[in-house]
Amino acid sequence: MKIAVLGTGMVGDAIGSRLVELGHEVKMGSRTADNEKAKAFVAKHNGQASAGTFADAAAFGEIIFNCTAGGASVEALTMAGESNIGGKIIVDIANPLDFSKGMPPSLIPALSNTHSLGEEIQKTFPSTKVVKTLNTMWCGLMVNPALINSGDHTNFICGHDVDAKQQVKVLLNEFGWKNENILDLGDISSARGTEAILPVWLRIWNATQNGAFNFKVIS
Amino acid sequence: MKIAVLGTGMVGDAIGSRLVELGHEVKMGSRTADNEKAKAFVAKHNGQASAGTFADAAAFGEIIFNCTAGGASVEALTMAGESNIGGKIIVDIANPLDFSKGMPPSLIPALSNTHSLGEEIQKTFPSTKVVKTLNTMWCGLMVNPALINSGDHTNFICGHDVDAKQQVKVLLNEFGWKNENILDLGDISSARGTEAILPVWLRIWNATQNGAFNFKVIS
Repeated sequence: MKIAVLGTGMVGDAIGSRLVELGHEVKMGSRTADNEKAKAFVAKHNGQASAGTFADAAAFGEIIFNCTAGGASVEALTMAGESNIGGKIIVDIANPLDFSKGMPPSLIPALSNTHSLGEEIQKTFPSTKVVKTLNTMWCGLMVNPALINSGDHTNFICGHDVDAKQQVKVLLNEFGWKNENILDLGDISSARGTEAILPVWLRIWNATQNGAFNFKVIS
Repeated sequence: MKIAVLGTGMVGDAIGSRLVELGHEVKMGSRTADNEKAKAFVAKHNGQASAGTFADAAAFGEIIFNCTAGGASVEALTMAGESNIGGKIIVDIANPLDFSKGMPPSLIPALSNTHSLGEEIQKTFPSTKVVKTLNTMWCGLMVNPALINSGDHTNFICGHDVDAKQQVKVLLNEFGWKNENILDLGDISSARGTEAILPVWLRIWNATQNGAFNFKVIS
Protein backbone atom coordinates (compact mmCIF):
# COMPACT_ATOMS: atom_id res chain seq x y z
CA MET A 1 0.00 0.00 0.00
CA LYS A 2 1.19 3.56 -0.67
CA ILE A 3 1.46 5.33 2.66
CA ALA A 4 2.31 8.92 3.61
CA VAL A 5 4.12 9.52 6.87
CA LEU A 6 3.95 13.17 7.86
CA GLY A 7 6.68 14.13 10.29
CA THR A 8 10.38 13.31 10.45
CA GLY A 9 10.81 12.85 14.21
CA MET A 10 11.27 9.65 16.18
CA VAL A 11 7.66 8.61 15.69
CA GLY A 12 7.65 9.21 11.94
CA ASP A 13 10.89 7.30 11.59
CA ALA A 14 9.59 4.36 13.64
CA ILE A 15 6.27 4.16 11.78
CA GLY A 16 7.83 4.71 8.36
CA SER A 17 10.61 2.19 8.91
CA ARG A 18 8.21 -0.50 10.09
CA LEU A 19 5.89 0.11 7.12
CA VAL A 20 8.84 -0.24 4.72
CA GLU A 21 9.89 -3.43 6.49
CA LEU A 22 6.35 -4.75 5.98
CA GLY A 23 6.60 -4.08 2.23
CA HIS A 24 4.63 -0.86 1.95
CA GLU A 25 5.67 2.06 -0.21
CA VAL A 26 6.36 4.99 2.09
CA LYS A 27 6.82 8.68 1.35
CA MET A 28 7.88 10.80 4.30
CA GLY A 29 6.56 14.35 4.26
CA SER A 30 7.95 17.46 5.88
CA ARG A 31 7.84 21.25 5.51
CA THR A 32 10.50 21.33 2.82
CA ALA A 33 11.52 18.83 0.16
CA ASP A 34 15.13 18.79 1.35
CA ASN A 35 14.63 17.94 5.03
CA GLU A 36 17.83 16.33 6.34
CA LYS A 37 16.07 13.77 8.53
CA ALA A 38 13.80 12.74 5.68
CA LYS A 39 16.84 12.33 3.43
CA ALA A 40 18.50 10.15 6.06
CA PHE A 41 15.31 8.08 6.30
CA VAL A 42 15.28 7.52 2.54
CA ALA A 43 19.00 6.68 2.48
CA LYS A 44 18.55 4.18 5.33
CA HIS A 45 15.95 2.33 3.34
CA ASN A 46 18.02 2.07 0.13
CA GLY A 47 15.45 3.64 -2.11
CA GLN A 48 12.52 1.59 -0.74
CA ALA A 49 11.17 4.87 0.62
CA SER A 50 10.95 8.40 -0.68
CA ALA A 51 10.45 11.87 0.74
CA GLY A 52 8.97 15.21 -0.22
CA THR A 53 6.86 18.05 1.08
CA PHE A 54 3.76 17.42 3.16
CA ALA A 55 1.79 17.91 -0.08
CA ASP A 56 3.99 15.48 -2.04
CA ALA A 57 3.60 12.81 0.60
CA ALA A 58 -0.14 13.32 1.06
CA ALA A 59 -0.74 13.17 -2.70
CA PHE A 60 1.24 9.90 -2.82
CA GLY A 61 -0.38 8.14 0.11
CA GLU A 62 -3.59 6.15 0.01
CA ILE A 63 -3.52 6.48 3.77
CA ILE A 64 -1.80 9.17 5.84
CA PHE A 65 -0.05 8.81 9.20
CA ASN A 66 0.10 12.05 11.16
CA CYS A 67 3.35 11.86 13.11
CA THR A 68 3.91 15.60 13.40
CA ALA A 69 4.09 17.49 16.70
CA GLY A 70 0.56 17.91 17.98
CA GLY A 71 0.71 21.69 18.18
CA ALA A 72 1.73 21.84 14.49
CA SER A 73 -0.48 19.08 13.10
CA VAL A 74 -3.31 21.20 11.73
CA GLU A 75 -0.80 23.48 10.03
CA ALA A 76 1.05 20.51 8.55
CA LEU A 77 -2.19 19.04 7.21
CA THR A 78 -3.16 22.44 5.82
CA MET A 79 0.19 22.53 4.01
CA ALA A 80 -0.50 18.99 2.78
CA GLY A 81 -3.57 20.44 1.09
CA GLU A 82 -7.21 19.47 1.29
CA SER A 83 -7.15 18.17 -2.28
CA ASN A 84 -4.38 15.73 -1.30
CA ILE A 85 -5.89 14.51 1.95
CA GLY A 86 -9.63 14.70 1.16
CA GLY A 87 -11.47 11.40 1.50
CA LYS A 88 -8.42 9.65 2.95
CA ILE A 89 -7.80 8.01 6.30
CA ILE A 90 -5.62 10.06 8.62
CA VAL A 91 -4.10 7.87 11.32
CA ASP A 92 -3.51 10.46 14.01
CA ILE A 93 -0.72 9.47 16.39
CA ALA A 94 0.10 12.99 17.60
CA ASN A 95 -0.46 14.44 21.04
CA PRO A 96 -1.22 18.10 21.77
CA LEU A 97 1.70 18.61 24.14
CA ASP A 98 2.38 22.08 25.49
CA PHE A 99 6.05 22.66 26.27
CA SER A 100 5.55 26.34 27.07
CA LYS A 101 4.69 25.82 30.75
CA GLY A 102 7.68 23.80 31.92
CA MET A 103 8.47 20.11 32.12
CA PRO A 104 6.89 17.65 31.99
CA PRO A 105 4.76 19.15 29.21
CA SER A 106 1.06 19.73 29.82
CA LEU A 107 -1.68 19.61 27.19
CA ILE A 108 -2.50 22.56 24.93
CA PRO A 109 -5.58 24.03 26.68
CA ALA A 110 -7.54 24.65 23.45
CA LEU A 111 -6.94 21.03 22.38
CA SER A 112 -7.71 19.19 25.61
CA ASN A 113 -10.32 18.40 28.25
CA THR A 114 -13.48 19.44 26.35
CA HIS A 115 -11.73 19.10 22.97
CA SER A 116 -8.86 17.11 21.46
CA LEU A 117 -6.39 17.20 18.62
CA GLY A 118 -8.11 14.27 16.94
CA GLU A 119 -11.42 16.15 16.93
CA GLU A 120 -9.78 19.37 15.75
CA ILE A 121 -8.28 17.57 12.74
CA GLN A 122 -11.61 15.88 11.95
CA LYS A 123 -13.44 19.22 12.27
CA THR A 124 -10.91 21.16 10.19
CA PHE A 125 -10.81 18.55 7.41
CA PRO A 126 -14.32 17.09 7.47
CA SER A 127 -13.90 14.96 4.35
CA THR A 128 -11.03 12.99 5.91
CA LYS A 129 -11.52 9.97 8.14
CA VAL A 130 -9.52 10.54 11.29
CA VAL A 131 -8.58 7.45 13.28
CA LYS A 132 -6.80 8.13 16.56
CA THR A 133 -4.60 5.28 17.75
CA LEU A 134 -1.12 4.38 19.06
CA ASN A 135 -0.64 7.81 20.67
CA THR A 136 -0.55 6.43 24.21
CA MET A 137 2.83 4.72 24.13
CA TRP A 138 6.50 4.94 23.14
CA CYS A 139 6.95 4.58 19.39
CA GLY A 140 9.04 1.42 19.72
CA LEU A 141 5.98 -0.34 21.13
CA MET A 142 3.60 1.16 18.57
CA VAL A 143 5.23 -0.82 15.78
CA ASN A 144 6.40 -3.82 17.79
CA PRO A 145 4.06 -4.53 20.70
CA ALA A 146 5.70 -7.92 21.31
CA LEU A 147 8.67 -6.09 22.84
CA ILE A 148 6.85 -6.39 26.19
CA ASN A 149 4.53 -9.02 27.70
CA SER A 150 4.30 -10.92 24.39
CA GLY A 151 2.31 -8.00 23.00
CA ASP A 152 -0.43 -8.43 25.59
CA HIS A 153 -1.23 -4.80 26.46
CA THR A 154 -3.79 -2.30 25.23
CA ASN A 155 -3.91 -0.04 22.21
CA PHE A 156 -6.91 2.28 21.97
CA ILE A 157 -8.58 3.27 18.72
CA CYS A 158 -11.33 5.77 18.01
CA GLY A 159 -12.86 7.60 15.08
CA HIS A 160 -16.18 8.30 13.40
CA ASP A 161 -15.75 5.97 10.44
CA VAL A 162 -16.16 2.27 11.23
CA ASP A 163 -14.65 1.10 7.91
CA ALA A 164 -11.66 3.39 8.37
CA LYS A 165 -11.05 1.93 11.83
CA GLN A 166 -11.25 -1.55 10.34
CA GLN A 167 -8.65 -0.68 7.68
CA VAL A 168 -6.35 0.77 10.33
CA LYS A 169 -6.79 -2.35 12.44
CA VAL A 170 -5.42 -4.41 9.56
CA LEU A 171 -2.25 -2.28 9.61
CA LEU A 172 -2.11 -2.59 13.41
CA ASN A 173 -2.33 -6.36 13.01
CA GLU A 174 0.64 -6.16 10.64
CA PHE A 175 2.55 -4.25 13.32
CA GLY A 176 1.83 -7.16 15.66
CA TRP A 177 -1.28 -5.99 17.50
CA LYS A 178 -3.79 -8.72 18.23
CA ASN A 179 -7.45 -7.77 17.90
CA GLU A 180 -8.13 -8.60 21.55
CA ASN A 181 -5.63 -5.91 22.54
CA ILE A 182 -7.17 -3.19 20.36
CA LEU A 183 -9.91 -1.44 22.33
CA ASP A 184 -12.36 0.60 20.26
CA LEU A 185 -13.58 3.54 22.35
CA GLY A 186 -16.08 4.81 19.80
CA ASP A 187 -16.12 8.06 17.89
CA ILE A 188 -13.31 10.60 17.64
CA SER A 189 -14.45 12.46 20.77
CA SER A 190 -12.82 9.65 22.73
CA ALA A 191 -9.50 11.18 21.70
CA ARG A 192 -10.19 13.47 24.70
CA GLY A 193 -9.63 10.39 26.79
CA THR A 194 -6.66 8.83 25.04
CA GLU A 195 -4.75 12.09 24.63
CA ALA A 196 -5.27 12.70 28.37
CA ILE A 197 -3.16 9.61 29.05
CA LEU A 198 -0.06 11.59 28.21
CA PRO A 199 0.17 13.41 31.55
CA VAL A 200 0.23 10.17 33.52
CA TRP A 201 2.42 8.48 30.91
CA LEU A 202 5.03 11.20 31.42
CA ARG A 203 4.85 10.83 35.22
CA ILE A 204 5.31 7.06 35.03
CA TRP A 205 8.22 7.48 32.64
CA ASN A 206 9.83 9.91 35.07
CA ALA A 207 9.22 7.70 38.11
CA THR A 208 10.43 4.47 36.50
CA GLN A 209 13.01 5.91 34.08
CA ASN A 210 11.69 3.47 31.52
CA GLY A 211 9.62 4.43 28.48
CA ALA A 212 9.10 0.88 27.26
CA PHE A 213 5.89 0.36 29.19
CA ASN A 214 2.23 0.39 28.33
CA PHE A 215 -1.14 0.10 29.99
CA LYS A 216 -3.24 -3.04 29.88
CA VAL A 217 -6.91 -2.73 30.67
CA ILE A 218 -7.67 -5.53 33.12
CA SER A 219 -11.19 -6.65 33.90
CA MET B 1 -6.88 3.29 64.07
CA LYS B 2 -9.37 6.17 64.29
CA ILE B 3 -10.21 7.22 60.75
CA ALA B 4 -12.36 10.03 59.34
CA VAL B 5 -14.17 9.44 56.08
CA LEU B 6 -15.38 12.71 54.60
CA GLY B 7 -18.21 12.18 52.13
CA THR B 8 -21.31 10.00 52.19
CA GLY B 9 -21.42 8.90 48.55
CA MET B 10 -20.59 5.52 47.05
CA VAL B 11 -16.86 6.03 47.57
CA GLY B 12 -17.18 7.10 51.21
CA ASP B 13 -19.45 4.16 51.92
CA ALA B 14 -17.07 1.68 50.26
CA ILE B 15 -13.98 3.03 52.03
CA GLY B 16 -15.72 3.41 55.38
CA SER B 17 -17.30 -0.04 55.28
CA ARG B 18 -14.03 -1.73 54.42
CA LEU B 19 -12.21 0.13 57.20
CA VAL B 20 -14.85 -0.98 59.70
CA GLU B 21 -14.54 -4.55 58.43
CA LEU B 22 -10.78 -4.33 59.02
CA GLY B 23 -11.38 -3.30 62.63
CA HIS B 24 -10.80 0.44 62.41
CA GLU B 25 -12.94 3.03 64.18
CA VAL B 26 -14.62 5.11 61.51
CA LYS B 27 -16.48 8.42 61.74
CA MET B 28 -18.19 9.53 58.57
CA GLY B 29 -18.36 13.28 58.07
CA SER B 30 -20.77 15.37 56.08
CA ARG B 31 -22.13 18.92 55.90
CA THR B 32 -24.68 18.35 58.62
CA ALA B 33 -24.73 16.05 61.65
CA ASP B 34 -28.02 14.47 60.57
CA ASN B 35 -27.16 13.37 57.04
CA GLU B 36 -29.45 10.48 56.05
CA LYS B 37 -26.79 8.51 54.19
CA ALA B 38 -24.38 8.84 57.10
CA LYS B 39 -27.09 7.62 59.48
CA ALA B 40 -27.72 4.62 57.23
CA PHE B 41 -23.97 3.92 57.18
CA VAL B 42 -23.83 3.94 60.97
CA ALA B 43 -26.93 1.75 61.26
CA LYS B 44 -25.50 -0.75 58.78
CA HIS B 45 -22.43 -1.18 60.94
CA ASN B 46 -24.32 -1.72 64.19
CA GLY B 47 -22.59 1.00 66.10
CA GLN B 48 -19.08 0.04 64.97
CA ALA B 49 -19.07 3.36 63.10
CA SER B 50 -20.25 6.86 63.89
CA ALA B 51 -21.09 10.01 62.00
CA GLY B 52 -21.02 13.77 62.43
CA THR B 53 -20.12 16.98 60.71
CA PHE B 54 -16.96 17.30 58.64
CA ALA B 55 -15.42 18.96 61.72
CA ASP B 56 -16.56 16.18 64.07
CA ALA B 57 -15.12 13.52 61.80
CA ALA B 58 -11.85 15.35 61.17
CA ALA B 59 -11.33 15.96 64.89
CA PHE B 60 -11.91 12.25 65.53
CA GLY B 61 -9.66 10.84 62.83
CA GLU B 62 -5.93 10.27 63.11
CA ILE B 63 -6.03 10.02 59.35
CA ILE B 64 -8.60 11.53 56.98
CA PHE B 65 -9.99 10.06 53.76
CA ASN B 66 -11.33 12.69 51.37
CA CYS B 67 -14.20 10.99 49.57
CA THR B 68 -16.13 14.16 48.77
CA ALA B 69 -16.93 15.34 45.24
CA GLY B 70 -13.78 16.91 43.80
CA GLY B 71 -15.37 20.26 43.09
CA ALA B 72 -16.48 20.54 46.75
CA SER B 73 -13.41 19.05 48.46
CA VAL B 74 -11.65 22.27 49.42
CA GLU B 75 -14.88 23.64 50.87
CA ALA B 76 -15.49 20.42 52.80
CA LEU B 77 -11.97 20.49 54.24
CA THR B 78 -12.41 24.16 55.10
CA MET B 79 -15.58 23.22 56.98
CA ALA B 80 -13.64 20.43 58.68
CA GLY B 81 -11.41 23.15 60.05
CA GLU B 82 -7.66 23.64 59.89
CA SER B 83 -7.30 22.92 63.59
CA ASN B 84 -8.91 19.50 63.06
CA ILE B 85 -6.96 18.50 59.95
CA GLY B 86 -3.60 20.23 60.59
CA GLY B 87 -0.63 17.87 60.67
CA LYS B 88 -2.73 14.91 59.59
CA ILE B 89 -2.59 12.70 56.52
CA ILE B 90 -5.34 13.41 53.99
CA VAL B 91 -5.84 10.44 51.68
CA ASP B 92 -7.29 12.21 48.67
CA ILE B 93 -9.43 9.92 46.54
CA ALA B 94 -11.48 12.64 44.87
CA ASN B 95 -11.45 13.71 41.23
CA PRO B 96 -12.13 17.24 39.99
CA LEU B 97 -14.96 16.25 37.67
CA ASP B 98 -16.87 18.98 35.85
CA PHE B 99 -20.46 17.99 35.12
CA SER B 100 -21.39 21.44 33.78
CA LYS B 101 -20.29 20.78 30.18
CA GLY B 102 -22.24 17.63 29.40
CA MET B 103 -21.55 13.93 29.74
CA PRO B 104 -19.16 12.31 30.15
CA PRO B 105 -17.84 14.87 32.64
CA SER B 106 -14.64 16.74 31.84
CA LEU B 107 -12.14 18.04 34.40
CA ILE B 108 -12.56 21.36 36.20
CA PRO B 109 -10.25 23.64 34.19
CA ALA B 110 -8.75 25.40 37.22
CA LEU B 111 -7.94 22.02 38.81
CA SER B 112 -6.45 20.18 35.85
CA ASN B 113 -3.67 20.09 33.26
CA THR B 114 -1.20 22.51 34.92
CA HIS B 115 -2.77 22.01 38.35
CA SER B 116 -4.70 19.31 40.21
CA LEU B 117 -7.09 18.83 43.09
CA GLY B 118 -4.40 17.05 45.10
CA GLU B 119 -2.08 20.04 44.75
CA GLU B 120 -4.87 22.50 45.51
CA ILE B 121 -5.64 20.72 48.79
CA GLN B 122 -1.94 20.56 49.70
CA LYS B 123 -1.51 24.26 48.88
CA THR B 124 -4.67 25.35 50.73
CA PHE B 125 -3.83 23.32 53.84
CA PRO B 126 -0.01 23.32 53.88
CA SER B 127 0.32 21.66 57.29
CA THR B 128 -1.53 18.55 56.11
CA LYS B 129 0.14 15.67 54.30
CA VAL B 130 -1.85 14.98 51.17
CA VAL B 131 -1.48 11.51 49.67
CA LYS B 132 -3.28 10.99 46.38
CA THR B 133 -4.20 7.40 45.65
CA LEU B 134 -7.04 5.05 44.59
CA ASN B 135 -8.76 7.78 42.53
CA THR B 136 -8.21 5.99 39.21
CA MET B 137 -10.69 3.14 39.63
CA TRP B 138 -14.18 2.07 40.69
CA CYS B 139 -14.57 2.10 44.48
CA GLY B 140 -15.27 -1.65 44.63
CA LEU B 141 -11.73 -2.28 43.39
CA MET B 142 -10.19 0.35 45.65
CA VAL B 143 -11.02 -1.68 48.74
CA ASN B 144 -10.89 -5.14 47.20
CA PRO B 145 -8.37 -5.29 44.35
CA ALA B 146 -8.57 -9.10 44.27
CA LEU B 147 -11.97 -8.79 42.57
CA ILE B 148 -10.10 -8.83 39.24
CA ASN B 149 -6.91 -10.55 38.04
CA SER B 150 -6.06 -11.74 41.58
CA GLY B 151 -5.38 -8.13 42.49
CA ASP B 152 -2.60 -7.82 39.92
CA HIS B 153 -3.23 -4.32 38.52
CA THR B 154 -1.86 -0.89 39.33
CA ASN B 155 -2.70 1.64 42.01
CA PHE B 156 -0.82 4.94 41.83
CA ILE B 157 0.27 6.94 44.86
CA CYS B 158 1.82 10.37 45.12
CA GLY B 159 2.47 13.03 47.73
CA HIS B 160 5.22 15.17 49.20
CA ASP B 161 5.64 13.28 52.46
CA VAL B 162 7.44 9.95 52.19
CA ASP B 163 6.42 8.79 55.67
CA ALA B 164 2.80 9.66 54.99
CA LYS B 165 2.88 7.62 51.78
CA GLN B 166 4.34 4.72 53.74
CA GLN B 167 1.54 4.90 56.33
CA VAL B 168 -1.07 4.97 53.58
CA LYS B 169 0.59 2.00 51.90
CA VAL B 170 0.03 -0.01 55.09
CA LEU B 171 -3.70 0.71 54.84
CA LEU B 172 -3.61 -0.14 51.12
CA ASN B 173 -1.98 -3.45 52.03
CA GLU B 174 -4.86 -4.08 54.45
CA PHE B 175 -7.28 -3.44 51.57
CA GLY B 176 -5.44 -6.13 49.64
CA TRP B 177 -2.97 -4.14 47.56
CA LYS B 178 0.42 -5.78 47.16
CA ASN B 179 3.41 -3.46 47.24
CA GLU B 180 4.46 -4.48 43.72
CA ASN B 181 1.14 -3.11 42.43
CA ILE B 182 1.48 0.26 44.17
CA LEU B 183 3.39 2.63 41.91
CA ASP B 184 4.81 5.73 43.60
CA LEU B 185 4.87 8.58 41.07
CA GLY B 186 6.62 11.06 43.36
CA ASP B 187 5.37 14.31 44.80
CA ILE B 188 1.80 15.59 44.77
CA SER B 189 2.23 17.30 41.38
CA SER B 190 1.85 13.82 39.88
CA ALA B 191 -1.84 14.10 40.78
CA ARG B 192 -2.00 16.04 37.48
CA GLY B 193 -1.27 12.72 35.85
CA THR B 194 -3.46 10.40 37.89
CA GLU B 195 -6.49 12.71 37.90
CA ALA B 196 -6.13 12.93 34.09
CA ILE B 197 -6.88 9.21 33.91
CA LEU B 198 -10.55 9.95 34.54
CA PRO B 199 -11.35 11.07 30.99
CA VAL B 200 -10.09 7.82 29.50
CA TRP B 201 -11.56 5.79 32.38
CA LEU B 202 -14.99 7.21 31.57
CA ARG B 203 -14.59 6.40 27.85
CA ILE B 204 -13.56 2.82 28.57
CA TRP B 205 -16.49 2.42 30.96
CA ASN B 206 -18.83 3.69 28.26
CA ALA B 207 -17.35 1.47 25.54
CA THR B 208 -17.27 -1.71 27.62
CA GLN B 209 -20.28 -1.05 29.88
CA ASN B 210 -18.18 -2.42 32.73
CA GLY B 211 -16.72 -0.33 35.54
CA ALA B 212 -14.92 -3.21 37.24
CA PHE B 213 -11.70 -2.71 35.31
CA ASN B 214 -8.36 -1.16 36.07
CA PHE B 215 -5.09 -0.36 34.36
CA LYS B 216 -1.96 -2.40 34.84
CA VAL B 217 1.34 -0.84 33.93
CA ILE B 218 3.18 -3.45 31.87
CA SER B 219 6.89 -3.22 31.14
